[in-house]
Amino acid sequence: MLSIDAARFLGRLAALAQVGRDEQGRLTRLAGSEADGAGRDRVAGWMREAGLDVRVDRIGNLIGLWDPSGTGAAPVMMGSHIDTVIDAGAYDGCTGVLAGLAVIEALREAGQAPRRPLALAAFTNEEGVRYAPDMMGSLVYAGGLPIEAALATVGTDGTVLGTELARIGYAGPEQPGFRRPHAYVELHVEQGPVLEREGIAIGAVEDLQGISWQEVTIEGAANHAGTTPMALRRDAGVAAALLVTWLRERARAGNGRSVATVGRLRLEPDAINVIPARATLTIDLRDPEADRLAAFEADLAGRLDALAREEDVTVAVRRLARFDPVTFDPRLVRAIEAAAQARGLSVRRMTSGAGHDAQMMARLCPAAMIFVPSVGGLSHNPAEHTKEADLVAGADVLLDVVWGLSGA
Amino acid sequence: MLSIDAARFLGRLAALAQVGRDEQGRLTRLAGSEADGAGRDRVAGWMREAGLDVRVDRIGNLIGLWDPSGTGAAPVMMGSHIDTVIDAGAYDGCTGVLAGLAVIEALREAGQAPRRPLALAAFTNEEGVRYAPDMMGSLVYAGGLPIEAALATVGTDGTVLGTELARIGYAGPEQPGFRRPHAYVELHVEQGPVLEREGIAIGAVEDLQGISWQEVTIEGAANHAGTTPMALRRDAGVAAALLVTWLRERARAGNGRSVATVGRLRLEPDAINVIPARATLTIDLRDPEADRLAAFEADLAGRLDALAREEDVTVAVRRLARFDPVTFDPRLVRAIEAAAQARGLSVRRMTSGAGHDAQMMARLCPAAMIFVPSVGGLSHNPAEHTKEADLVAGADVLLDVVWGLSGA
Repeated sequence: MLSIDAARFLGRLAALAQVGRDEQGRLTRLAGSEADGAGRDRVAGWMREAGLDVRVDRIGNLIGLWDPSGTGAAPVMMGSHIDTVIDAGAYDGCTGVLAGLAVIEALREAGQAPRRPLALAAFTNEEGVRYAPDMMGSLVYAGGLPIEAALATVGTDGTVLGTELARIGYAGPEQPGFRRPHAYVELHVEQGPVLEREGIAIGAVEDLQGISWQEVTIEGAANHAGTTPMALRRDAGVAAALLVTWLRERARAGNGRSVATVGRLRLEPDAINVIPARATLTIDLRDPEADRLAAFEADLAGRLDALAREEDVTVAVRRLARFDPVTFDPRLVRAIEAAAQARGLSVRRMTSGAGHDAQMMARLCPAAMIFVPSVGGLSHNPAEHTKEADLVAGADVLLDVVWGLSGA
Repeated sequence: MLSIDAARFLGRLAALAQVGRDEQGRLTRLAGSEADGAGRDRVAGWMREAGLDVRVDRIGNLIGLWDPSGTGAAPVMMGSHIDTVIDAGAYDGCTGVLAGLAVIEALREAGQAPRRPLALAAFTNEEGVRYAPDMMGSLVYAGGLPIEAALATVGTDGTVLGTELARIGYAGPEQPGFRRPHAYVELHVEQGPVLEREGIAIGAVEDLQGISWQEVTIEGAANHAGTTPMALRRDAGVAAALLVTWLRERARAGNGRSVATVGRLRLEPDAINVIPARATLTIDLRDPEADRLAAFEADLAGRLDALAREEDVTVAVRRLARFDPVTFDPRLVRAIEAAAQARGLSVRRMTSGAGHDAQMMARLCPAAMIFVPSVGGLSHNPAEHTKEADLVAGADVLLDVVWGLSGA
């Protein structure tokens, strides 16, 4: 049974994790930055060493092509991203890109020539930290966002993405989507606690949660904390707290698939002895089923109306982001399960709670994802970690699935 | 029936409200500031014009004495403060000081010589905005805080109160408490909605709420908002919200006298898609009865223990301030009621929700307060307003009560 070169794969993961560290040792490779450029140079160099035909498209997606049979057919694509959040871990994104490279090298070095071409993509700006929206490179590649609009995006630091890509040498000539894949498979760290908690090595990701982001502003009336009787208060902070607790109960009351999070909450005037006049909070709702996500949103809208009446406050809602859930290709999911089982690895079907490039590529072709366990469920955090054996097992499953798809 | 000179009283209130306005027209006379010095100069000048013997003690309390009978007995003291919050209204504090001056002038100009001396105090740093604690001048006068400690207080701007008092010329020679009053009566705007809502002219303040200020820090675990199932979360924000709603219910469940406010609440890391790892909030509990306040605090401590267990979070509490409730002198309260009724003014007994100099003076002598309505219940706000007729009515009631106490 063919396997990837574990030492080379892990060595490159470690090497890439050194690109973009600051004096304090913190890893940050924001999309379009110098550090992103340096990371891309490293990955592109490894692609060329592996004999790939390296292309860059207009949104900066870095794509290596290998067509040993010379068919020019639609490729089986692997990929992920190498941009990071601020003070990031080493595994989010890079694992999928470097595992894809290891898969091609394993086949090539074993003298295997797949019938279909293979492609490996490092998509631009998956994290969306500097430029919104996230998953931008794959979204543009899949035709979901016009290239001109994407290039004109102004970042949190006032920069323009197109200008920054040109500056770091990754404003390429290819039209995004220039190769429509036959299939897309992405290996990624889970970024959640499920696999580790259940002691399972491989996640066969069958769907991906829809996401609804809203900002809610509640306006009550500031007043003296000592002299205002409870019955006469219009406390925006209490209204916000009622909303937070309702969201938790509503999420729990379902079948366990809906999640709701209030990550930001600000009170004004923010004084110990003044009843809050205004509360501003964000709501992050996710569910893998479109109908359930829409029902949660509808219930939330109703709850906000009731809250305004019951608490004598006004409530304003601003939509920040909305992605429908994605169902991955069932045959690909079965192929991932089968490959794991054939290697004696424990496997379970699961839902991705986070967004990934695979959800955009699913608009173009059959797609699915392979997850490997995150220690402690941590991600977007320097403590992010996946055990070496799990990383290698995931890359080997990717190898088997891609080999099967490419027409062994 | 003797009355105060309404036009002179209201004119001085308006004049004093012009001292300390900035270019934008905002009124700020922080304790020990240049503006405070200018306000004191104005008030001291009016005291001298009224024939008072003006004294300043070491903490800067400005005290005018009038002893027409030459008895040297313990004076009946009136007073309040002229320092303000930032962007203040015209009435908080100044009303009581200038009404006291109007009372003395009314008696003097009518040829009345009270048997006991009268005294009028403008206490230093009642607001506590620049130097903590608030009500500092009256607290020192009543022996509740050593003068050296008070003078060494470092302000929010890094200044030292004693240095600032000397700079503005109000580090006086008298020992705080140099005249122990026979009684103390303070007129003040309500700073709450009760009198206006009930259409009542005069509040006879029979007690003053105890105050308990605490800061609570809840520590959970940051995690991905999409990938972390509801059942596996340790959400510090949800725990904080449960606490906020519990506080409201606990306050409401009593007899309507307890109030609870969460005015500040901060989440960390404060990101839309990250479960809050830490919530920091302030709790302001008030109740006019010591036992009830203590019971509320005990219930809160129990609730925090339960919350830590139920939500798998850690909870740390820091005490910020604590003042026991004050019960004012029943005979004085009855005298205020009787004086209001004799003038045909509607009157009700009530509790002060805010802290006042009178609560400190109650340690030294029988004390009570007269409240007049605040329009809209607003205070600590440039929109703070009390109608002229209400201000004058309050000053006339003060006149009658003081005349009765001083041995007409």
